[in-house]
Amino acid sequence: MSAKTGTRVQGTVWGVGLGPGDPDLMSVRADRLIRGARHLAYFRKAGRMGRARQIVDGMLPDTVSEVPMDYPMTTEIPFSDPRYVAALSGFYADCTTRLRRLAEAGEDVVVLCEGDPFFYGSFMHLYTRLKPVVPVRVVPAITGMSAAWTATGLPVTWGDDVLSVVMGTLPEEALSTHMAQADALVVMKVGQNLGKVRRALQAAGKYDAAWLVEYASMPQQTVQRLCETEAETAPYFSIVVVHGQGRRP
Amino acid sequence: MSAKTGTRVQGTVWGVGLGPGDPDLMSVRADRLIRGARHLAYFRKAGRMGRARQIVDGMLPDTVSEVPMDYPMTTEIPFSDPRYVAALSGFYADCTTRLRRLAEAGEDVVVLCEGDPFFYGSFMHLYTRLKPVVPVRVVPAITGMSAAWTATGLPVTWGDDVLSVVMGTLPEEALSTHMAQADALVVMKVGQNLGKVRRALQAAGKYDAAWLVEYASMPQQTVQRLCETEAETAPYFSIVVVHGQGRRP
Ligand SMILES: C[S@@+](CC[C@H](N)C(=O)[O-])C[C@H]1O[C@@H](n2cnc3c(N)ncnc32)[C@H](O)[C@@H]1O
Ligand SMILES: C[S@@+](CC[C@H](N)C(=O)[O-])C[C@H]1O[C@@H](n2cnc3c(N)ncnc32)[C@H](O)[C@@H]1O
Repeated sequence: MSAKTGTRVQGTVWGVGLGPGDPDLMSVRADRLIRGARHLAYFRKAGRMGRARQIVDGMLPDTVSEVPMDYPMTTEIPFSDPRYVAALSGFYADCTTRLRRLAEAGEDVVVLCEGDPFFYGSFMHLYTRLKPVVPVRVVPAITGMSAAWTATGLPVTWGDDVLSVVMGTLPEEALSTHMAQADALVVMKVGQNLGKVRRALQAAGKYDAAWLVEYASMPQQTVQRLCETEAETAPYFSIVVVHGQGRRP
Repeated sequence: MSAKTGTRVQGTVWGVGLGPGDPDLMSVRADRLIRGARHLAYFRKAGRMGRARQIVDGMLPDTVSEVPMDYPMTTEIPFSDPRYVAALSGFYADCTTRLRRLAEAGEDVVVLCEGDPFFYGSFMHLYTRLKPVVPVRVVPAITGMSAAWTATGLPVTWGDDVLSVVMGTLPEEALSTHMAQADALVVMKVGQNLGKVRRALQAAGKYDAAWLVEYASMPQQTVQRLCETEAETAPYFSIVVVHGQGRRP
């Protein structure tokens, strides 16, 4: 690398967590980095603005140069399909090249990340590829789940409660096993998996205690007891929360 | 209540998450509420400044009125001791009375909370007591664990990884059972329990993959592989992280 860039100082790629959606819940550091950004990269579905970009709308300097990174597929191919893995891996390699070139040219780049970047985030795929070649820094953030349990108005964990975070994409039986073993529970990637998540919660004896939070901290936020809803799918930004019941003096 | 306060509008008790310690990682909302605070309440050990109060040092208006809430015990009595539970419960009731009186007098109060208030936080004990009687609002925040895994420089969860959060205060066998079942792991309240946590990780086959992060995001931050350390105890602000190894295209 250093041969290419000569003695020029490399720029830094910043993976900046935006938090759950409300711009007021961004960290002071994220706010400052975004308002001062020269290059701003973000993932989006082709043809959409993308949630991350939307969150920072109105915060950007006129001079910012945008680097949208369009996901290669519009419909969902199952992850088990090798074409999907190949397409995604090629896409991440391309994004890496774009960001790397900027950093090698001495430019800092802010990459917008929904929630906390290192917690099931897409930026992680760029991070592992960029880290060996250019300076990369990560700014942690409030997770979607923190906003979700706050929205329920009930603390999520007490005393010695065990909290497990599970993905709705897991097989039903794995879901119900993990659900049964934890005291408090967060289910992410609920979306298309809501029916399966309901059945797994029932099998684990936690259905009646579960809450469904959609769009936590966003203008469209909704909070409901899961058993009082009938939908078979939920939006992408949905989380199921089961609160722990640990000791409380 | 309304009889006591007449028609006066009640103030709000704000449980404000400070994040992991670095003031730059506070949310924009927390920053604004703290800089504008009229009454500022926080827990501390008697005779100490308290970490929460320390984090906001230098941010406070001259006119702020401070409401320190001193924990009733200096040495650690085990939680199983009923005297401990009684002392703590009386203490939380007293704190509730102080904050409630302020709110009933029409005053807003900011209560400082380390990390995210609803995630194993002390404020929860005031929240449940205050909520039926005065307006209470909660501002979520970056958790200590987010700062800890960010400090390791490695993403914590990938794909369908299950993350479990366990307290070092749990019995050793419960610890190792939960540790064995999760893909990614966060152990909090490590402090005096470090020896037990080591043994439980060994039993679960995760010892060599574990990292110890002390004072995440604070000036004294340290990050080490657990197996390269020999200490039998760790500071109060310590977290053990085991990263998940889920799919990554
Ligand atoms: C790929 S993961 C990214 C998680 C993110 N890095 C975080 O820290 O929250 C996407 C999932 O996070 C959850 N999620 C994130 N933000 C959310 C929000 N504001 N409201 C509801 N769900 C959210 C949803 O379950 C969604 O399917
Ligand atoms: C009573 S819990 C409070 C957790 C807090 N509400 C949060 O969201 O992180 C205290 C435990 O949190 C962990 N902790 C919180 N902040 C930390 C930090 N900055 N560095 C290391 N550990 C931290 C430690 O394990 C500590 O024993």
